[in-house]
Amino acid sequence: MTEVVDRASSSREAAATAAAPVVDVTALGELLLGKWAHIRRTARDLAGRPEVHKIEGLTHSEHRKRVFGQLKYLVENNAVHRAFPASLGGSDDHGGNIAGFEELVTADPSLQIKAGVQWGLFGSAVMHLGTEEHQDRWLPGIMNLEIPGCFAMTETGHGSDVASIATTASYDEATQEFVINTPFRAAWKDYIGNAAVDGLAAVVFAQLVTRNVNHGVHAFYVQLRDPDTKEFMPGIGGEDDGLKGGLNGIDNGRLHFSDVRVPRTHLLNRYGNVSPEGEYTSPIASPGRRFFTMLGTLVQGRVSLDGAAVAASKVALTTAIRYATERRQFNAASPADEEVLLDYQRHQRRLFTRLATTFATSFAHEQLLEKFDDVFSGRHDTDADRQDLETLAAALKPMSTWHALDTLQECREACGGAGFLSENRFASLRADLDVYATFEGDNTVLLQLVAKRLLADYAKEFRNVDFGVLARFVVAQATDVAFHRTGLRQVAQFVADTGSVQKAALALRDEEGQRTLLTDRVQSMVAEIGSALKGANKLPQHQAAALFNQHQDELIDAAQAHAELLQWEAFTEALGKVTDPGTRQVLTWLRDLFGLSLIEKHLSWYLMNGRLSMQRGRTVGAYINRLLLKIRPHALDLVDSFGYGPEHLRAAIAFGAEKERQDEARSYFQAQRASGKAPSDEKTLLASKGKKYSPSSFRPK
Amino acid sequence: MTEVVDRASSSREAAATAAAPVVDVTALGELLLGKWAHIRRTARDLAGRPEVHKIEGLTHSEHRKRVFGQLKYLVENNAVHRAFPASLGGSDDHGGNIAGFEELVTADPSLQIKAGVQWGLFGSAVMHLGTEEHQDRWLPGIMNLEIPGCFAMTETGHGSDVASIATTASYDEATQEFVINTPFRAAWKDYIGNAAVDGLAAVVFAQLVTRNVNHGVHAFYVQLRDPDTKEFMPGIGGEDDGLKGGLNGIDNGRLHFSDVRVPRTHLLNRYGNVSPEGEYTSPIASPGRRFFTMLGTLVQGRVSLDGAAVAASKVALTTAIRYATERRQFNAASPADEEVLLDYQRHQRRLFTRLATTFATSFAHEQLLEKFDDVFSGRHDTDADRQDLETLAAALKPMSTWHALDTLQECREACGGAGFLSENRFASLRADLDVYATFEGDNTVLLQLVAKRLLADYAKEFRNVDFGVLARFVVAQATDVAFHRTGLRQVAQFVADTGSVQKAALALRDEEGQRTLLTDRVQSMVAEIGSALKGANKLPQHQAAALFNQHQDELIDAAQAHAELLQWEAFTEALGKVTDPGTRQVLTWLRDLFGLSLIEKHLSWYLMNGRLSMQRGRTVGAYINRLLLKIRPHALDLVDSFGYGPEHLRAAIAFGAEKERQDEARSYFQAQRASGKAPSDEKTLLASKGKKYSPSSFRPK
Repeated sequence: MTEVVDRASSSREAAATAAAPVVDVTALGELLLGKWAHIRRTARDLAGRPEVHKIEGLTHSEHRKRVFGQLKYLVENNAVHRAFPASLGGSDDHGGNIAGFEELVTADPSLQIKAGVQWGLFGSAVMHLGTEEHQDRWLPGIMNLEIPGCFAMTETGHGSDVASIATTASYDEATQEFVINTPFRAAWKDYIGNAAVDGLAAVVFAQLVTRNVNHGVHAFYVQLRDPDTKEFMPGIGGEDDGLKGGLNGIDNGRLHFSDVRVPRTHLLNRYGNVSPEGEYTSPIASPGRRFFTMLGTLVQGRVSLDGAAVAASKVALTTAIRYATERRQFNAASPADEEVLLDYQRHQRRLFTRLATTFATSFAHEQLLEKFDDVFSGRHDTDADRQDLETLAAALKPMSTWHALDTLQECREACGGAGFLSENRFASLRADLDVYATFEGDNTVLLQLVAKRLLADYAKEFRNVDFGVLARFVVAQATDVAFHRTGLRQVAQFVADTGSVQKAALALRDEEGQRTLLTDRVQSMVAEIGSALKGANKLPQHQAAALFNQHQDELIDAAQAHAELLQWEAFTEALGKVTDPGTRQVLTWLRDLFGLSLIEKHLSWYLMNGRLSMQRGRTVGAYINRLLLKIRPHALDLVDSFGYGPEHLRAAIAFGAEKERQDEARSYFQAQRASGKAPSDEKTLLASKGKKYSPSSFRPK
Repeated sequence: MTEVVDRASSSREAAATAAAPVVDVTALGELLLGKWAHIRRTARDLAGRPEVHKIEGLTHSEHRKRVFGQLKYLVENNAVHRAFPASLGGSDDHGGNIAGFEELVTADPSLQIKAGVQWGLFGSAVMHLGTEEHQDRWLPGIMNLEIPGCFAMTETGHGSDVASIATTASYDEATQEFVINTPFRAAWKDYIGNAAVDGLAAVVFAQLVTRNVNHGVHAFYVQLRDPDTKEFMPGIGGEDDGLKGGLNGIDNGRLHFSDVRVPRTHLLNRYGNVSPEGEYTSPIASPGRRFFTMLGTLVQGRVSLDGAAVAASKVALTTAIRYATERRQFNAASPADEEVLLDYQRHQRRLFTRLATTFATSFAHEQLLEKFDDVFSGRHDTDADRQDLETLAAALKPMSTWHALDTLQECREACGGAGFLSENRFASLRADLDVYATFEGDNTVLLQLVAKRLLADYAKEFRNVDFGVLARFVVAQATDVAFHRTGLRQVAQFVADTGSVQKAALALRDEEGQRTLLTDRVQSMVAEIGSALKGANKLPQHQAAALFNQHQDELIDAAQAHAELLQWEAFTEALGKVTDPGTRQVLTWLRDLFGLSLIEKHLSWYLMNGRLSMQRGRTVGAYINRLLLKIRPHALDLVDSFGYGPEHLRAAIAFGAEKERQDEARSYFQAQRASGKAPSDEKTLLASKGKKYSPSSFRPK
């Protein structure tokens, strides 16, 4: 029964015993903070201040006002300018900007997202799509919040399918103006942050038409409201999207345009221009590639949602694991000390598997952020780099956002009724993060983008796939972009040697064994689908579409398998940087737990495809259970390494209140027993006196 | 490509083609309404009225006031008295009462649960635990809401572990009073509905102590507040639990008692009495059995949550499936009509598997409700009946409440940004139903109760299991209850003949094949655990506990497998009642989808244990995909059979708004094309003119 020894309720206690590994919390914390540690620290300091904290129970109009005020607070505290040009008071630091931005989620996700709308989308569009003239003219006001603005891309009729938006901007040579129209209800801009109340201006995406040719989606700077009266400008109208499932500190709304005229120079014309005479010119000849370039800025939203989801998962697990190390199901009247919740196998399963995944998402996010910074800083900014970045973000953002929702829910349930109280924040964070799964790219659509890339890497045939099932968004983004890189993981190569896989399976707990199994699965799935779809591009379009549709589920599964492999590799790579032996040992257990959980999740695949034998398959669960026991003594250290303080957790149950109550109860019963006045128990009397003691039979009238 | 034919976008269209089965929506609707159809209809009529609808965005105090007002509305409309004695104006109809009560969830879950607190818990405790005198004295005021009251059982320190509550009621012979105390903070009553504001009285559960013997948990009627001033009575205090993740129309709170004296006659003494002189008497000699009997009334909460979860799942799927038959990802500018969302394989997977499970939970709930009515009506009310009812409720409530949360979330995501708007209700319903997973018996704890029963049926040895891991709550309820029934499904028998299983596997799509696979899994899992735990009761307690803990995860999995089998059997039994061939065909596909989805979910088990071959395993997914295509034309009919009207759905996207917008967009583009004024597309020009047409290269300054 060695497990009993492992189940010490305090990490420090257990660590004190001989030969047990000890986690270096500080060093691990530093590793998790990553390349932009200093900016994360500054941002966490800011996010810890009461001024920016969410107040639960405000009406949505109160909440909106509060968040707008908090945006000003961010400006005053120099928290939002990092990505902007140094010439305008920024610091041209794209990675650092996102790192700091992500940390705001612990204060209030509404604040994070509204800041994202203002500076990450609206400001960013002016910066990336506009010329220097545009930047000089509008960025100062955007940066200091004199011009709250919108990123008006999505329409009621088109979410993910940006290429098909129906808003038009038609050039009128006579007046040298663009005339903007939303010709029918489905073309209204919808779900637009800042649109319902605060937005004075917007970057409006519309089909640019000049000389009766549609040159595709371009961005226009449009004044929405009169800065004094806050009334809509002529021709512009809108609606409030009203209450939402969360993020109610943001005033999402709809916008419609009827013959709204803006000067020719309001076209953000870095990638496409119209001369006064109406001639269209562009530095990018291919319309598809031009579109892809203009939408490139969107990736930063996905990168930051990925990071914010990781942060929220960490906060939730810290609270839930702390509570689980205190809460007992025991009878306080009993003298024996009994298990805390975290000693139960199921509770460990519920929380530690998610803890392991959270480490994986955290390390994977750091890689994504570095890739993002490489591209946006211009250090490595080829088409291939951009494409890799897009694919990586499209793979990781769905995994981390779904993981955050799952983790917040599991933590909430693991804390029972207390988990449901707003004071412990799980439900509130979950409600706010819900939409992370579908905005800035619907998770299911993004995974199809990843699948498309995997297929393209697998076979040339799929490079220019252009039929319905792989959502048009994917296709539109990818058309004309050459895939001259081999992919984030080389999937075109084959582990044809099933012998080597069988051998690897003998070492499930081995790094190379896990890698082989996970990699093999991605490669085989892609190859299988690729083979099933072979020749699809030669079929009539509707037949090709039907064929693709028959494999859509597998395509998405393959993309997920790929994303999981990326997470596993990121975890393993981070492990390589750990020098302290104790930390390395514990983190290896955690990485193994992550790897084995993935293998368990997809065990039927491994069995059906002969990668694991029946006997080997049966050891996976048992091995996971042993890992849970090994990790148990280090659970508190592991969540401590996340580095979130009381000012970030802000959960009533995260700071010893439960233990205090139990100590009080225990003292009470001890004192009662010591006094000799404790009542006897009827059950005990029955047991000792047998049938002699029994309450008289009694039948109430 | 026969699938293309199957993918007609309208059920009626497809049904019109020769030989295609047609669902008799009315007859299927009647089957789903079940035994208490007339009461469900009356309740749905009531739940459809604006007076009882949730208004989103109210502050929690406004919401509380509104819901309290709605409770009065229920009284005025004779909607709450069905379970109470005919002598007091009720109708002694227990099953009908729950059926009607469940339907309130579509109006506002807060209303449902607050009504449940008042009449299902507080009133029910007075009725079931009190004598006729108590009933006559208090029930009229409870029924007409003159006495809003609490069911004060749960304490901060004890959720599921009711036997260990620390509140005491000590009999004082001198004054013939009970003195009620919550001796420390952990003993405060917590999460108590009606406690923060409205409750004038409470049934307080406390350890009854007389002559210095503790006779265990009993219920006491206690006046909490002065009816005029609404101030707490002397010795009583409390706190507001404040905001919650949902159900904010209910004023949950904490209560504490310091030497609060209540007359001896306030003991609800049906199952235990104290004479004026302090002598304790009871018609039930065994304290464990007495406890179980007194807690028996709690089962009705679980039954009704099960039913409410089913109703919420139906509402969500109706809206999501209707929207998915209208929403297109297509380019409105393109002349070709393209797929609606529901034609995509992944979308079908997401929604139809949950639709199938919803039918299963619905039919299983009907069986549970009939069992409940049998017991509570007294028609079949043996100990064994009660025990079966407890186990059935403990198995089904976790499955249906988790299923509802999963379904609401999937539907919300399947509707994208529109799904997140409160006007479409997914997020709001999900927030309100969140706590259904942990209150009235934590789902994980309930499944352990089921596991205990399965083990007990398997081997006598486990009948009196009494160590920590099977939560004390389970043990406390089960002690002293003889298991003279063989269980809801006979699990002690073995399919030792693996040959028969192999044969059954050849017919996955066959009813008997599915049954054999599902049944075999439950039996084998239970036998395996039972064998692993053999002799545990002879080990020292801490070793036995550790041994049990090593199998906790499997125990819970086995309980879930059992619950899934019950659902499948209920679906199959309901199928047997369908006479219309078309309906029967479609419902058979849906039942097969449910069965095959279960087998796919647990496929690794079937493979590892030699129940399915690798080759057979690989056919499961493909067969599911074929079922999705077969079900597709009937999706609208199937959700229509749920019978919820606009007054229950109340979702903006459920009533054709999307189709209307698309029709408008299509007309616009058609008119534009017809006029010959539609702009050409740069891409098209490029394609036709080759390199000749190209925008000039242009580099903005």
